[in-house]
Amino acid sequence: MKISLIQIKIAETPEENLKKIKSILIQVKEKGTDMAVLPEMCACPYENRAFVQYAMKQESYFLKELAQIAKQLEIYLVAGSVPEREGSNIYNTSFVFDFKGRIIARHRKAHLFDIAIEGGQKFMESDTFVAGDSLTTFYTPWGMFGLIICYDIRFPEYVRLLALKGAKVVITPAAFNMSTGPCHWELTFRARALDNQVFMVGCAAARDLEASYHSWGHSIVIDPWGSVLEQLDENEGILTIEIDISKVDKIRKELPLLLHRRNDLYNIILGDPGDEHGRY
Amino acid sequence: MKISLIQIKIAETPEENLKKIKSILIQVKEKGTDMAVLPEMCACPYENRAFVQYAMKQESYFLKELAQIAKQLEIYLVAGSVPEREGSNIYNTSFVFDFKGRIIARHRKAHLFDIAIEGGQKFMESDTFVAGDSLTTFYTPWGMFGLIICYDIRFPEYVRLLALKGAKVVITPAAFNMSTGPCHWELTFRARALDNQVFMVGCAAARDLEASYHSWGHSIVIDPWGSVLEQLDENEGILTIEIDISKVDKIRKELPLLLHRRNDLYNIILGDPGDEHGRY
Repeated sequence: MKISLIQIKIAETPEENLKKIKSILIQVKEKGTDMAVLPEMCACPYENRAFVQYAMKQESYFLKELAQIAKQLEIYLVAGSVPEREGSNIYNTSFVFDFKGRIIARHRKAHLFDIAIEGGQKFMESDTFVAGDSLTTFYTPWGMFGLIICYDIRFPEYVRLLALKGAKVVITPAAFNMSTGPCHWELTFRARALDNQVFMVGCAAARDLEASYHSWGHSIVIDPWGSVLEQLDENEGILTIEIDISKVDKIRKELPLLLHRRNDLYNIILGDPGDEHGRY
Repeated sequence: MKISLIQIKIAETPEENLKKIKSILIQVKEKGTDMAVLPEMCACPYENRAFVQYAMKQESYFLKELAQIAKQLEIYLVAGSVPEREGSNIYNTSFVFDFKGRIIARHRKAHLFDIAIEGGQKFMESDTFVAGDSLTTFYTPWGMFGLIICYDIRFPEYVRLLALKGAKVVITPAAFNMSTGPCHWELTFRARALDNQVFMVGCAAARDLEASYHSWGHSIVIDPWGSVLEQLDENEGILTIEIDISKVDKIRKELPLLLHRRNDLYNIILGDPGDEHGRY
């Protein structure tokens, strides 16, 4: 399958961003893309002020138009993320549309990014957002995919659960910054890919020094052996790559990490330990 | 505290290795080392044949001599690992001696290394060894340490449990090979350090092309931000480094990964899920 990561600078309004995204989707379809991925917060700037100002419902114009173009182009579309309003709550939410424009997944970022580094980055997503509470997967003709957003990737248990549930590719709209990006972006994507023997796909916004939040960029695709297949720099760009998902099974056979887990010694459980939601 | 990783080539017999180790321990003590770490399988070659041939009891001459030298030099000694015989079982076991020569920890490798890469490494530890079943920590004047052996590091849940139990440094006698070493050694140590915000310390045997198993070497120390502090190459060498364990708390305060775990969504449990051994 062919996947395209769309690393663009994000403009102020959903309307401006929608226009740009639409025209790029038409281009990547021409290259034979099966699935396009947009960055975290692709509708408005990555700022608490903008999250509130542009928070949109699932039935919003922005999302309906994305559904429409997915259907028109017959592609799968992981629509980065948008500030999603439901009642009085705002979530950082990624919707996935199938080739008929139907919503087949909705992931609300489960781990909110609150950081305060001495002399470095400070950002408090929890000032605005409410955390989601799902473990999100979706089915495609190429196999099961997992879906997380940015800071979710920091938690090895969470990505492990996706792999145990059956995901072979984990899509991650994201926006690392200039403190964590250089040190942790590639390392974390490679680690999750290697440990779980899955493809990891990260799509970030391009760096915009006029924005208040400076994105690390570097949209990336890692194979299940933990190797970087391709990575952009900080500028606007499109990463289009063919991935062979059968590589997951091949590597798991040679080095059977998931099979060698000592689940007589430890287990990750999903949901409250008292529940029976799932046990892996 | 000052820690020394002793990366040596391993000779055929425990007697030869003991002699070499003793003389190096005297040298590192002179440099002010508080804790010395030996490689995985420091008493005999890394071969199933040797594991059986040289399997030793806890009361063996080799281990008693190491206890004696720890006491004499007043250092902490993580004695790599040895093939340990108990009854009819053989384990891949790491003993830790304190500065009075007392055994303060015994870790039996919990994940046995069985690999068969197409055109690459093939090795089946489970042909000889029985797996241990503990989560091993020990106390020192500098804080709590975790102890794992080589392939144990591949399992993020297992190292996470050590961090949740309170370990701030995880010592890992290890012996990656020429298939996995170049791709996964540094990546895995960095990932465990970053995700758990602990120091990761890996001590491997030096490469010996006359041995049947070619060790990757590259003994390594990573800080809790995921950065490589120092790393050897494949040759014999000693890595001595001062580490500031208070860095763990500083980094956990700035980027509170352990605090941000969604343990309402998922939990790692130790022991059988029906048990109440521990819940984190």
